[in-house]
Amino acid sequence: MVFGAIEAGGTKFVVAVGDASGKVLKRETYPTTEPAETMKSVERFFKQYEGDLEAIGVGSFGPIDVRKSSPTYGYITSTPKLAWRNYDIVGALKKAFEVPIGFTTDVNAAALGEVTLGAAEGLSSCMYITIGTGIGAGAVVNGKMLEGYSHPEMGHIMVRRHKHDRYQGNCPYHDDCLEGLAAGGAIEKRWGKKGVELAENEEVWNLEAHYIAQALMNYSLILSPERIVIGGGVMKQRQVFPLVRQKLKTLIAGYIQLPDLEEYIVPPKLEDDAGVTGCILLAVQTKNEA
Amino acid sequence: MVFGAIEAGGTKFVVAVGDASGKVLKRETYPTTEPAETMKSVERFFKQYEGDLEAIGVGSFGPIDVRKSSPTYGYITSTPKLAWRNYDIVGALKKAFEVPIGFTTDVNAAALGEVTLGAAEGLSSCMYITIGTGIGAGAVVNGKMLEGYSHPEMGHIMVRRHKHDRYQGNCPYHDDCLEGLAAGGAIEKRWGKKGVELAENEEVWNLEAHYIAQALMNYSLILSPERIVIGGGVMKQRQVFPLVRQKLKTLIAGYIQLPDLEEYIVPPKLEDDAGVTGCILLAVQTKNEA
Repeated sequence: MVFGAIEAGGTKFVVAVGDASGKVLKRETYPTTEPAETMKSVERFFKQYEGDLEAIGVGSFGPIDVRKSSPTYGYITSTPKLAWRNYDIVGALKKAFEVPIGFTTDVNAAALGEVTLGAAEGLSSCMYITIGTGIGAGAVVNGKMLEGYSHPEMGHIMVRRHKHDRYQGNCPYHDDCLEGLAAGGAIEKRWGKKGVELAENEEVWNLEAHYIAQALMNYSLILSPERIVIGGGVMKQRQVFPLVRQKLKTLIAGYIQLPDLEEYIVPPKLEDDAGVTGCILLAVQTKNEA
Repeated sequence: MVFGAIEAGGTKFVVAVGDASGKVLKRETYPTTEPAETMKSVERFFKQYEGDLEAIGVGSFGPIDVRKSSPTYGYITSTPKLAWRNYDIVGALKKAFEVPIGFTTDVNAAALGEVTLGAAEGLSSCMYITIGTGIGAGAVVNGKMLEGYSHPEMGHIMVRRHKHDRYQGNCPYHDDCLEGLAAGGAIEKRWGKKGVELAENEEVWNLEAHYIAQALMNYSLILSPERIVIGGGVMKQRQVFPLVRQKLKTLIAGYIQLPDLEEYIVPPKLEDDAGVTGCILLAVQTKNEA
């Protein structure tokens, strides 16, 4: 008895099978090329487990349609990756495998992974934020992944520009939303180098923390999570964490009580396994609800 | 068999009993003076129903402590209303009545009321925002009131100042957060008159919508509710609704799909009964979980 996981990312697909506790038993990785090609590898992987496979959990790059009542439920929708636009990934899996399929965003899956077995283990709520090429975030509320009319798109919230920041922003929709000002792409365009080459430049990370702290202020006031886990390439610059905590404290100004900030804002514990672990756990949830 | 409700507001307490469907059977209102006095009236009201009373749901002004594991669970905490600061309202009720007591914010209760019997009836998620003297908001996610480490305090999120707005803001903690710039108090101080006397002044309501739309943008991206119900004294100026919808559409810039905006952003249907109805429903939930 195994549970399948597909972490569908814009550059790679990670597929795995795991046990009911969320433990990864076997995994493979394929580049994200075109649906026909990538999904052929995915199917070949899971065919090995046919008979033992109980369900599959998919955590996908987005935007995706998670509304069960929608005619395009289970589709990857308006992604800039043209080959995948309006691709019915859940439909394709249902054709190939007669098991229940769970479907959510990559970041919601990662939040479920971290709250079950990672940096927020044992809590009933947490957020998972990834700050890399783009900014995405998912959340678990009362033990369940956060969805409503659709899935959250928290990377695009409005923030206040720093008065000395002249960079116009990088988001094709909103210019200077959080992602437009603070994702890896914005750092590279603003400073002319990748974040990893700017590790010693304090100004870069103070500005980065200025934007991230504003986002955490709004997330905290709106969602009141018990813990905020922040991963992604940009956050490998661990010097950002203390700056973000300090700036968040200043912004909140004592208005609400937060958990101890050292415990509230933390890096992932599962690291690159958060998503795939969450997908296994989503498969388990989906099986239990089927 | 009746369910008790206490909508504990900063200026008045509304107490009621209702049936399991949320229907109000009997209600009374008392001014919020000092705990000893106000709570004596509350107790006298419910004593009439002793024997029939199954549970009490309390929706309170805040901040309040909703963390079950906290030593001050059930307290009204750092309110500016000094007589009520650190008042153990749940403890006082437990002493007087041997029934389960549910406890949440007034706005979370109103969200539960509207999603069950009001403007968001039949949905599994909604937000309830009140824009009056202050700004508060609650939410229902997956059919349950939104709580995590604590309760949301969404009225204090950061927004971007309008470039022509010279008013410094009215929030003692954050100056120009949403509440500081857009609550009734801010309108009165900025323009020198109460909102109700400014009904004909388009500039006032365009600026108001500028701030409210920013908040709805962030709430939508973070929570993805199915509907947003906005009440409170300021929103009695119904001309604000179309302005908010239009400005929200501009801000989202087609990035995410929202429900039809006429159905997405609506006034309350239960009007002044949202809170007390939600408190009855909270009492029912609390009884079922006890």
